[in-house]
Amino acid sequence: MADEFKHLVLVKFKEDVVVEDILKQLEKLAHEIDVVKSFVWGKDGESHEMLTQGFTHAMIMTFNSKEDYNTFASHPNHVEFSATFATVIEKAVLLDFPAISVKAPAK
Amino acid sequence: MADEFKHLVLVKFKEDVVVEDILKQLEKLAHEIDVVKSFVWGKDGESHEMLTQGFTHAMIMTFNSKEDYNTFASHPNHVEFSATFATVIEKAVLLDFPAISVKAPAK
Repeated sequence: MADEFKHLVLVKFKEDVVVEDILKQLEKLAHEIDVVKSFVWGKDGESHEMLTQGFTHAMIMTFNSKEDYNTFASHPNHVEFSATFATVIEKAVLLDFPAISVKAPAK
Repeated sequence: MADEFKHLVLVKFKEDVVVEDILKQLEKLAHEIDVVKSFVWGKDGESHEMLTQGFTHAMIMTFNSKEDYNTFASHPNHVEFSATFATVIEKAVLLDFPAISVKAPAK
């Protein structure tokens, strides 16, 4: 696990956005682009806004390497999606990092 | 994977903090508390600040269920760590959410 690379996005969507549609597009994207090893998302509906800073959704994409992430990032389908994504978000934070696995699930 | 629960923390540490020490404490915590299924962290050293909003570190803890997360959150060792953690961060975002797995790693 030590060499995995993660692409993490926290988002607050604009009010009139159909979030399900965006997530479907993301799901499609993850399946279309082979280098995406895994993709998990979630919605925090409970934590205090003081903690979430207004962010509601987290998306975590995992790749086998930074090179695979770069392949994803420059893929035309991702570039196209990103342009759309930028129009539906009120704010976002993105972090890309080599994942240091401290505790791995028991086999 | 559908029922996993994730605890995600993005952090910007204060300037004079020895980040390695904090991460070691977190590592210890993850090992001490059985319900922590997996723990991964990473440091983004490259992305543009416009994207990272100044956050440098991401921590992702995974639990089998929300109940397990609650057990972790209320564990005395976590409560104690959180008090310390609050003193070393400049800012943080926390999201807690049931993880929807769209694409899982091939077996």
